Amino acid sequence: MGKYKGASQLLLLPKSTIEVSKILSYCNTRRLAVVPQGGNTGLVGGSVPVYDEVIVSLAGMDKIISFDKVNGILTCEAGCVLENLSTFVENEGFIMPLDLGAKGSCHIGGNVSTNAGGLRFIRYGSLHGNVLGLEVVMADGTILDMLTTLRKDNTGYDLKHLFIGSEGSLGVVTKISLLTPAKLPSNNVAFLSCNDYTSCQKLLLAARRNLGEILSAFEFMDHHCIDLAMRHLEGVQNPLPASQTKFYVLIETTGSDESYNKTKLEAFLLRSMEDGLIADGVIAQDISQASNFWRIREGISEASVKVGAVYKYDLSIPVEKLYDIVEEMRCRLGDNAEVFGYGHLGDGNLHLNIVSSKYDDNTLAQIEPFVYEWTSAQRGSVSAEHGLGLMKAEKIHYSKSPEAVQLMASVKKLLDPNSILNPYKVLPRSVL
Amino acid sequence: MGKYKGASQLLLLPKSTIEVSKILSYCNTRRLAVVPQGGNTGLVGGSVPVYDEVIVSLAGMDKIISFDKVNGILTCEAGCVLENLSTFVENEGFIMPLDLGAKGSCHIGGNVSTNAGGLRFIRYGSLHGNVLGLEVVMADGTILDMLTTLRKDNTGYDLKHLFIGSEGSLGVVTKISLLTPAKLPSNNVAFLSCNDYTSCQKLLLAARRNLGEILSAFEFMDHHCIDLAMRHLEGVQNPLPASQTKFYVLIETTGSDESYNKTKLEAFLLRSMEDGLIADGVIAQDISQASNFWRIREGISEASVKVGAVYKYDLSIPVEKLYDIVEEMRCRLGDNAEVFGYGHLGDGNLHLNIVSSKYDDNTLAQIEPFVYEWTSAQRGSVSAEHGLGLMKAEKIHYSKSPEAVQLMASVKKLLDPNSILNPYKVLPRSVL
Repeated sequence: MGKYKGASQLLLLPKSTIEVSKILSYCNTRRLAVVPQGGNTGLVGGSVPVYDEVIVSLAGMDKIISFDKVNGILTCEAGCVLENLSTFVENEGFIMPLDLGAKGSCHIGGNVSTNAGGLRFIRYGSLHGNVLGLEVVMADGTILDMLTTLRKDNTGYDLKHLFIGSEGSLGVVTKISLLTPAKLPSNNVAFLSCNDYTSCQKLLLAARRNLGEILSAFEFMDHHCIDLAMRHLEGVQNPLPASQTKFYVLIETTGSDESYNKTKLEAFLLRSMEDGLIADGVIAQDISQASNFWRIREGISEASVKVGAVYKYDLSIPVEKLYDIVEEMRCRLGDNAEVFGYGHLGDGNLHLNIVSSKYDDNTLAQIEPFVYEWTSAQRGSVSAEHGLGLMKAEKIHYSKSPEAVQLMASVKKLLDPNSILNPYKVLPRSVL
Repeated sequence: MGKYKGASQLLLLPKSTIEVSKILSYCNTRRLAVVPQGGNTGLVGGSVPVYDEVIVSLAGMDKIISFDKVNGILTCEAGCVLENLSTFVENEGFIMPLDLGAKGSCHIGGNVSTNAGGLRFIRYGSLHGNVLGLEVVMADGTILDMLTTLRKDNTGYDLKHLFIGSEGSLGVVTKISLLTPAKLPSNNVAFLSCNDYTSCQKLLLAARRNLGEILSAFEFMDHHCIDLAMRHLEGVQNPLPASQTKFYVLIETTGSDESYNKTKLEAFLLRSMEDGLIADGVIAQDISQASNFWRIREGISEASVKVGAVYKYDLSIPVEKLYDIVEEMRCRLGDNAEVFGYGHLGDGNLHLNIVSSKYDDNTLAQIEPFVYEWTSAQRGSVSAEHGLGLMKAEKIHYSKSPEAVQLMASVKKLLDPNSILNPYKVLPRSVL
């Protein structure tokens, strides 16, 4: 989005853990600040230098180390691109437990460091559950080998979780082992329209109950998103061109039995239509149609930046109130901006986007701190899956207690006493 | 097992978080050691005082605080008994993501503090993935409110993971919020016999592929376990009395469609029998038969202690080598002891049990450190799901690197500078 720009003069491309260790050891001794960098697809400025930090890019460490075909355990270097890993494990009959729009560029090391969520979260859960082991280089260059491939290991504190989601501020993730679920042969995608938000919620509940173990995605978009995608994405088609409804839902099911799962999805959609939850809908008849449905959902972010300046918020909000903030924001901003909402409804995760002709302080003052205060009042999260980075380091108190932030600062000081790792990110200056 | 016995003169039963906070604050100021205690069902002495520590039992904090029926999110106090929570959420149409033999006594706070695994791990994964939020009282009495009920929250370091599995040595868990999966109506259990260990492994692979999303348990027992259960458990029946095989497997499937799932399981078993993976087998025809199957598996531990002194080891080992240690141990011990193995094959988790007439140093010297060295050589874990406690605090180096243990010690010193919380447990004395 062009929001963040640093002035680094040095980017290093280590080829091995030893090289990362030597770099950090050198920088730590001389108190040189370091920004670990993955695929640079973050939305909160977490991987962008603020001043003249040394950039340590993991792009040169992109090897797959091993794959255990019996248990589906992948071990690889941090710089592997998510899509390449996806292709690799799919050829072996497995899938990655996470998938997101940026998959073509983002690195698995960045995914782990930001605890990326994405489209498969509803089925396979968080990386805290899927990462089995990590190798991490600490601020002083110490290599921390936690690269186990065991599903269960209760020997002492499970330190790897400190590094999952800490955005490179406690250590640099260099290697990862990950549990990959079996690839199931039957996959169906439906694109549906709903008249109101209450219907979307009821549909989610019904899908959880009736599709149960085969439900693998439940994504939600308002009609502004669809308009945007149709106007600005090349080659996509509106699956429901006649529909005039305000909301759209994409449901995916994945299972081991094609005919059974398709019949089950069809029966579910028919019942939901009879119950008035769905206004209209279509099931993809082939892979290209399914890709088209997904392209719309995944392309919203890409489409929005073509319109103008985008203010993006990534919020966790109790499902029943999730769309209220979109409507409140629309009232606040009037004709000054276009407000739209989409996201992972099954996980209570809204992506609130506000598009204006340019970034300006007046618009921003209309949005913030209101959006954070509102979310905090619902006991929500001001960063569901994107992290805090530079953008929201000072906003942490909207979602975390002072005692928790204080403990985070103590942990930061313990692991990075010279504050060389990704400075100005994640934690507010006041506690450091 | 009567292995550990302390000499505490004081057990406190706080009724609220504030009371826990006052106790810890008092003890911390006066440097009085504290043992947090849950249901006392641990196997490694983690909740037993070593000398005259003050016992803080959470048994008085057993209230369910709230249940979100839309999203299946349970919030409760740490002293709730697992089985009571199970009954409660099942009445609401959900299930607990964990289940274990000790469910009738163990507390959810203890489950979280020891990162308990159990019988549903293969389907729902670790508590690191299922716990949404915690309230923890720290050593100095500070109350750390991390009791969020959000599925996704990437605001700062995810500190709750430090307390999951740290066996009460970093803080006392007082409240928990947990994601509970929807209860699916169809549940089938099969009890099978296999001629050799290779067949058990192949059966596991085939089950993962063919049962896919409905597989909810894959438990494994050798014939010694069955003999033991038949001899020492009241009211259980041998499901396969004519079988003379060396291995037994319990498979459970859970799904949303009764007739389909049963047909699928039957077809899978038939194919596996044709392929020679299964020697004999039976599917439970009603709930009482299913309970009987489960009673055998869950009762092995209870049955074993009726025979004599039991040496118990809880190991993570790559599946292909998992049974080797049972056979090696049998060779080492000869007629001095009965050696048997069972466990969660789907998770690579073996429970190795050695029963002797009494505990003695000679037998122990035959077993240890051999069992740990052997496991370490396979890059396994010397505690898959039971934790380290008192029994294995000095064994941590068999599964963790010196750098990792050093960092654990630093974290311990940061969170509990006076070392009042559960001393002599989890970490070796040398690093503290």
